[in-house]
Amino acid sequence: MTGQRADARRNYALILAVAEAEVAAHGADASLEQIARTAGVGSATVRRHFPTRRALLEAVFSNRIDALCALATELTSADDPRSALLDWLSALTRYATSARGMADALLKDAAEEADHVNACSVRLGGAVDPLLHRAARSGAVAPEVTTADLITLVTGLTLATEQHPDPAAEAQRLLALTVRGICPRS
Amino acid sequence: MTGQRADARRNYALILAVAEAEVAAHGADASLEQIARTAGVGSATVRRHFPTRRALLEAVFSNRIDALCALATELTSADDPRSALLDWLSALTRYATSARGMADALLKDAAEEADHVNACSVRLGGAVDPLLHRAARSGAVAPEVTTADLITLVTGLTLATEQHPDPAAEAQRLLALTVRGICPRS
Repeated sequence: MTGQRADARRNYALILAVAEAEVAAHGADASLEQIARTAGVGSATVRRHFPTRRALLEAVFSNRIDALCALATELTSADDPRSALLDWLSALTRYATSARGMADALLKDAAEEADHVNACSVRLGGAVDPLLHRAARSGAVAPEVTTADLITLVTGLTLATEQHPDPAAEAQRLLALTVRGICPRS
Repeated sequence: MTGQRADARRNYALILAVAEAEVAAHGADASLEQIARTAGVGSATVRRHFPTRRALLEAVFSNRIDALCALATELTSADDPRSALLDWLSALTRYATSARGMADALLKDAAEEADHVNACSVRLGGAVDPLLHRAARSGAVAPEVTTADLITLVTGLTLATEQHPDPAAEAQRLLALTVRGICPRS
């Protein structure tokens, strides 16, 4: 946003923050008009920053990925490498269950979306790899486990609990089971 | 099938066996004409036993559930309760990854399907509970783990590995990780 005027930057950040809250509450069907009203700006201002619903959803999505990356980086210097990784996994699961409707909406344009999802995975991997490697060096995680494995497992938990009356709680419960293992003894 | 003539019973079993192989190879798009040809019967005979594609898919699905129930019952008297449960989980995962297209096709009629899936889960639970309880009594599995948890976890693995180049192998690899746990130490 270099060169944008300060109030335009403030509007962008405000609209994005309001959009995040709306998407968390109502999924991808969040109303652009409601977002404009809550942000106290006109619909034209929302459209100037985000020409399409898709552009807005992608910005929200991208913002959440940034937050997950920042959390991973912060947790990499936490005292206990094991609980640091588990805190991050729990945040990823919370994010994945709340972003469900959004992922569906973004996945509707599959070809374009594959690039976007891949880009997000690469971005996430760069931030999470150090956290995971530290947990592996401490012996908490087997050395062959990858960041992609963790993302795939959490994605699976999210998809499989969609029909549950309380998907967020059920996904966290099954995450705990996946962390300690179904049959941990060998 | 009481009262059906012997050759009609033979035809039913033969068509179902051929349909299972076709569905395993080609998913829910398996050709009814090809099934009739391979079974060496006319299309009219296939339609007499299975009036719709859905009826055929449900019969195949139901047959696989029966096989998973029979396997669970057999494994309940195996020597090692832990490896017996793991053998069954592996068979469930194999089944779930091969039945993917079929599940999609069946799920298209969601309302009717919910009943069918519930009925299958109940049937599966009846056969797997003794296997799971035996593993729990031996200390291999935490006592609070339910058959529904195992089915949900395997469903998640199956859904999350759909886009992988080798979904069946990837699902088994992630099942092994879920069995031993991401961070098994407490």
